[in-house]
Amino acid sequence: MLLTLDLLGIFVFALAGGLVAVRKELDVVGVLVLATVTALGGGLTRDVLIGAVPPPGLADWRYLMTPLAAGLFVFFFHPALHRLERPINYADAGGLGLFCVAGALKASDYGLNPLPAAMLGLVTAVGGGVMRDVLVREVPGILRRGELYATPALAGAIVAVVGTEAGLDHAAIGPPAAVVAIVWRMLAIHRGWMAPMPGPRDKSS
Amino acid sequence: MLLTLDLLGIFVFALAGGLVAVRKELDVVGVLVLATVTALGGGLTRDVLIGAVPPPGLADWRYLMTPLAAGLFVFFFHPALHRLERPINYADAGGLGLFCVAGALKASDYGLNPLPAAMLGLVTAVGGGVMRDVLVREVPGILRRGELYATPALAGAIVAVVGTEAGLDHAAIGPPAAVVAIVWRMLAIHRGWMAPMPGPRDKSS
Amino acid sequence: MLLTLDLLGIFVFALAGGLVAVRKELDVVGVLVLATVTALGGGLTRDVLIGAVPPPGLADWRYLMTPLAAGLFVFFFHPALHRLERPINYADAGGLGLFCVAGALKASDYGLNPLPAAMLGLVTAVGGGVMRDVLVREVPGILRRGELYATPALAGAIVAVVGTEAGLDHAAIGPPAAVVAIVWRMLAIHRGWMAPMPGPRDKSS
Repeated sequence: MLLTLDLLGIFVFALAGGLVAVRKELDVVGVLVLATVTALGGGLTRDVLIGAVPPPGLADWRYLMTPLAAGLFVFFFHPALHRLERPINYADAGGLGLFCVAGALKASDYGLNPLPAAMLGLVTAVGGGVMRDVLVREVPGILRRGELYATPALAGAIVAVVGTEAGLDHAAIGPPAAVVAIVWRMLAIHRGWMAPMPGPRDKSS
Repeated sequence: MLLTLDLLGIFVFALAGGLVAVRKELDVVGVLVLATVTALGGGLTRDVLIGAVPPPGLADWRYLMTPLAAGLFVFFFHPALHRLERPINYADAGGLGLFCVAGALKASDYGLNPLPAAMLGLVTAVGGGVMRDVLVREVPGILRRGELYATPALAGAIVAVVGTEAGLDHAAIGPPAAVVAIVWRMLAIHRGWMAPMPGPRDKSS
Repeated sequence: MLLTLDLLGIFVFALAGGLVAVRKELDVVGVLVLATVTALGGGLTRDVLIGAVPPPGLADWRYLMTPLAAGLFVFFFHPALHRLERPINYADAGGLGLFCVAGALKASDYGLNPLPAAMLGLVTAVGGGVMRDVLVREVPGILRRGELYATPALAGAIVAVVGTEAGLDHAAIGPPAAVVAIVWRMLAIHRGWMAPMPGPRDKSS
C-alpha cells in the first residue's frame, strides 16, 4: 500500500520533470534523465545525508523503472499531457504531501532531531525539482515568487515530526500530516498565495 | 594495469574539463576545479550512493594528482590542445567506455541489482561532465541534441551487468563491454548519430 | 569555544547567502534556503564524502537554527546590511579561515591523506558558496577572475594538514593555519590580488 503510493508519487513527479524537458527541447535522454532526477533526486539526497545507502531508490529496481516509464510516456504522449496541466498540478500536490511526510518520518527513524528531520522532509519533497531546474538552467521554482510550494511541504513535515515526538506512530500521524501539506498546496494554487518578499533594497537609502 | 587505465581515463576527462574552463575564460582556479570535477565527479557520486566512503577518488592521492596535473597542463598548453580536438574526442570515448563499465561493475560488486548498477555505470561516465556543465551555466551536453554520448555509456554498462549476471567475471566481460561503448560512441561522432527528439508540442492542437 | 566559532562562521556565511537571495529578488523561502545552503553546503559535502553521516550539520539542531536565524535577519534588515558590505567581507574571511582548517582537520581525523584532506578543507570553505551561485544561475565566484578566495582557503588547509603530519595537535596548528588563510584573503581584498588567467586562446594560431 505504502509502496504503491510511493511509486504513484514518483510517477507524478517524473511526469512533471519530463514535461519540463520537452518544453526545453531536450532529446529522449534529456526527458528520461529529467524525469528520473525530478522523481528520485530528493529521496536520494535524504538517504545519502542520513547514511541510508545504498538507498532504496537504487536498491529496489521498481523505484528506477517508474520514472523511466513515466519519461517514455511523456516522450510519446506529451501533447496530450500538456492539456492535462491542471490535473497534473493536483497530482503533484499529492506527491508533495506524500514525500514531505515520508521523508521526515524516515529521517526521524534514523535518529535525527525534529528540526533536521523536518528539513529533510522538505528536501525529500522539493530536492528533485531543484535539481531539475538547475539542470535546465533555471533558478529553482521554490526560491522564486510563485504559489507556495516549499511552505506546505515544510508544514506537512513539521506536523509529522511533532506527532512522532508526541508518541504517535507513523500510521497515525502520516495521513493527517500529508493532508495538511496537500490541502495547503491546493489552496495556494487556487487562491494565488505567495510567500512574502524582502522589502525594497533602497528602503533605507 | 587497471589503475593505469583508470588514471588515463581521468587524465583525458580532466583535459576536456580544463579546456571548457579556458573557453569560458575562467582563471587558474577555475581550470583546476573544472578539470577535477569533470574527471572525478561521476565516480565520487557513484561511491557516495553505494556507500563506498571515503571514495578511492579521495583516499588514494593519485586520483587527485592526475586531474590537477591535467589541469595545469591545460593551463599552460591549451592553444596546442585546441588543435588536438579530434584526438581528444577519441580519447574521451575511451574514458567513457572505461568509466561506464568500471562504474557498473563496482556497483554490482556492492550488491546492486542489474538495472541500478547499469544506471550507476552511466552516472560514473557522465556525472562529472554534467557537473562541469552546470558549473559553467550550460545545459548539460548529454541532455541536449548532439552526437550520442549517454546511450553508448549506458549500452556498455548494460553489457557489463548482463555479463556479470550470466556468471562472467570482470576480466572476461569488462573489455568487450568497454569496446561496445567506445565503438558506438566513435560511430556516433563519425556518422552524426543523435538521439530522437520528442514530437512537436503543438502536434495535437 | 570551538562550537561558538563554528556557529559564528556559519552565521556570517549565511548572511552572505541571504544577501545574494535579496539581490536576486527571491522570496522569503529563497532567502532562508540560500542562507542555509551557503552556510552548511560545504560541510555537508565533506561529511558525506568522508562518511560522517548523519553529519553534525544535521544531527545538531544548532547548526540548522543559526543559518535560519541569519536568513530571517537578512530578510528584515537587509537594507542596513548592504551598507555593511565591507565588515561582512572581513567577517566572511574569518569564516573562510575557520572552515578550511576545520574541514581539513576533520578529514584528516577520518584517515584521509594530506592532499585529499586539504582538498576537503577547500570544499568545506567554498562548497556552500558554489552551490549558492549555481542555484541563482551564476558561474561560481571562485572559478572566475576576482580577488583570491580559493587560494587562501587551500593555503590554510595545507598548513593545517602539514602541521598535523608533523605531529602537531589540532589546538596547536589550527589557529596559525586559520590566520594564514584569513590574512591572505584580507590582503587579496585590499590589494586586488587575483589568480592568473590562461594565456590567450589564439596565441599559437
